[in-house]
Amino acid sequence: MSEKNILVMKFGGTSVGTTEKIMRVAQRAIKAKKEGSNVVIVVSAMGDTTDDLIGLAAKISKNPKRREMDMLLSTGEQVSMSLLAMAINEKGENAVSLTGYQAGIITDNVFSEAKIASINNERIFKEFQKQNIVIVAGFQGITADMDITTLGRGGSDTTAVALAAALDAKYCEIFTDVDGVFTTDPNIVKNAKKIEILSYDEMLELASSGAKVLHLRAVEFAKNHNVIIHVRSSFNDNEGTWVMDKEKNKVFNAKDKMEQAVVSAVSYDANQIKISVFGIPDTPGVAAHLFGEFANANINVDMIVQNVGENEIAAISLTIKSEDLEIAKKVIESLKKDLQISNIEIDPEIAKVSIVGAGMKSHPGVAAAMFSCLGEKNINIEMISTSPIIISCVIRKERAKEAVGLLHDCFDLGE
Amino acid sequence: MSEKNILVMKFGGTSVGTTEKIMRVAQRAIKAKKEGSNVVIVVSAMGDTTDDLIGLAAKISKNPKRREMDMLLSTGEQVSMSLLAMAINEKGENAVSLTGYQAGIITDNVFSEAKIASINNERIFKEFQKQNIVIVAGFQGITADMDITTLGRGGSDTTAVALAAALDAKYCEIFTDVDGVFTTDPNIVKNAKKIEILSYDEMLELASSGAKVLHLRAVEFAKNHNVIIHVRSSFNDNEGTWVMDKEKNKVFNAKDKMEQAVVSAVSYDANQIKISVFGIPDTPGVAAHLFGEFANANINVDMIVQNVGENEIAAISLTIKSEDLEIAKKVIESLKKDLQISNIEIDPEIAKVSIVGAGMKSHPGVAAAMFSCLGEKNINIEMISTSPIIISCVIRKERAKEAVGLLHDCFDLGE
Repeated sequence: MSEKNILVMKFGGTSVGTTEKIMRVAQRAIKAKKEGSNVVIVVSAMGDTTDDLIGLAAKISKNPKRREMDMLLSTGEQVSMSLLAMAINEKGENAVSLTGYQAGIITDNVFSEAKIASINNERIFKEFQKQNIVIVAGFQGITADMDITTLGRGGSDTTAVALAAALDAKYCEIFTDVDGVFTTDPNIVKNAKKIEILSYDEMLELASSGAKVLHLRAVEFAKNHNVIIHVRSSFNDNEGTWVMDKEKNKVFNAKDKMEQAVVSAVSYDANQIKISVFGIPDTPGVAAHLFGEFANANINVDMIVQNVGENEIAAISLTIKSEDLEIAKKVIESLKKDLQISNIEIDPEIAKVSIVGAGMKSHPGVAAAMFSCLGEKNINIEMISTSPIIISCVIRKERAKEAVGLLHDCFDLGE
Repeated sequence: MSEKNILVMKFGGTSVGTTEKIMRVAQRAIKAKKEGSNVVIVVSAMGDTTDDLIGLAAKISKNPKRREMDMLLSTGEQVSMSLLAMAINEKGENAVSLTGYQAGIITDNVFSEAKIASINNERIFKEFQKQNIVIVAGFQGITADMDITTLGRGGSDTTAVALAAALDAKYCEIFTDVDGVFTTDPNIVKNAKKIEILSYDEMLELASSGAKVLHLRAVEFAKNHNVIIHVRSSFNDNEGTWVMDKEKNKVFNAKDKMEQAVVSAVSYDANQIKISVFGIPDTPGVAAHLFGEFANANINVDMIVQNVGENEIAAISLTIKSEDLEIAKKVIESLKKDLQISNIEIDPEIAKVSIVGAGMKSHPGVAAAMFSCLGEKNINIEMISTSPIIISCVIRKERAKEAVGLLHDCFDLGE
């Protein structure tokens, strides 16, 4: 652990949604400083600010330039961070707020979806020397040409993790409105249990398979730079969920004593659409053409299943996010002409349920257990995809919650 | 006039108060560009944004650090300028919005009341080369240490004039909700007339004596850098009021043909308080001590009249702004002890009426005409101050508007 004893704490929009909540975050920051840490707070915009600003822009232009959107949206964090600095000052502690560029966060110039290129930590260390709690605007950075960028939705998580890496912080605390990462959504399964520790890969699979507690890119960044993340509640002092390299951090607390679970969590994503393309000539390059067009339209394809049917005519099923439907329809229309495809079905009534666990790698039969668990209740599996630590099944949307409960019981994840 | 043909246009908060109004400003900017100018637009924050942000801060701290207030308030202009850029883009023209630091506006580090130290115009010229209409945040700049500053209320006028100077613009247009500078407040005197041309000194005296149409510092800046200002309405295309060095700009339009008026305008300021200090020992250094204490408390003293009474005991009357009353009271309490002053009276029921005109310098008897005009109607003059181009009288507040009308008629300023 770092001798500098630096702690990065990130608070999302709901945690700073009102001035009262900002005062509570201030209290929390001061407590951490009094306990001996050099504290960096990363904040999102207050409550619905970002959506309000997007609404304002929409009144003016249906398709505003992304540079100007970033200029607009980056004000949200600037408001919450300056208010938080005032709140900390009001409680008698030193604080200073820094915009993305003041904090030295340099990004590429892909506006609205910028990636952090480097962080110059000089200013933050200067502020530590002045005994300041340092508040940094999440979600934003600056290009080499001094243009303001934003990192895309959930980008504040990425800011926090990147700062933790750049400052060699002992860990990065992500404060949220739940107690941590759960074995599944507690709103669906009553006895869902908080997970004490997750590997980066498990957290990555959970984030990409529907769990919303941590932003995918932030976890990738944490994995690449070995930043320990602590996901915890902003409403209490309970221990949350630690995300870390389980092997490397055996000395960290007593958490390594835990037996590695085969399955750690069940996630689901009802925000998907299945597209089935029938009657594709089974000739080389057709699939590449098809997915190439989706990629050109910036549509993220999630699951893919291909079957060769009779007469060497193939069928491909794939899933995409619901919000990409309209663009996907246009792509499909042009594909129909180009590839002489006979039939395309769009099915929005599906959901994806997944089981995630690092222990799967060394435990055969997990997939079989999952399929039989669903099969016993006559839940039909329409698509399957697997990786070393995740198995996902597409099923009917109306049975998704039931399936989550069944799998949660089946793998004995409850309290 | 500059070969670069640069035009700086400044729009205040009411001119960009709604998205509809922003669309109208966009139209205006495009028109100016199509007429052949390189256009820089300086904007204030939308409508009541600044006051709303101040209210938000007040919920958290009664005395927030000025650095953090500047961080907070500077977001207001960032919102309006990005929306304006989107509006111009939406109408098919190129535009880019720049924050104070992107536009190269370097200030000292007196937060909330910063002064512009220099402007690096490199970025703006680069944007001109890209055929962009350049939108710059008013009211803000950055210190050499990269901290955001604001220029104080009305600072957007100063931003506009300073940019016009730094870019060698042909002139600086200040758009407002009236048609220009009037001979007096049209709300008080029905036949008040728009003034076609004013010298810097006249405009300075008008701004400092109560006319709110232009910010005092902006006029000082314009005078020092010989920037021609055109104050005009954002609601129509009428010619407004030109503020310029009348001598140097004889070639400019046909305005120099106008005969120099003896009195150009009548202004008044009801936002003043008279403080009378009686029984001051008439010894050297006492007045210096008294006004030194006011200066230390950052109270701007406007008019001063000193009379030596009986027994070599002096009385001093002075006026200050109403908002400084509470601080002034504290200063007075400590002065009473230090200087053994017997009696101090505070009188908020006064107003200042002034006549302004560059022609006064060469026309004796203007003061006499003013006093007799007021005297004929039994309006008692309690204090008088004069400079080469302004004469101000303190009178009872309840007769201020009447006095303005009388003087306006007396010097034949109406239409």
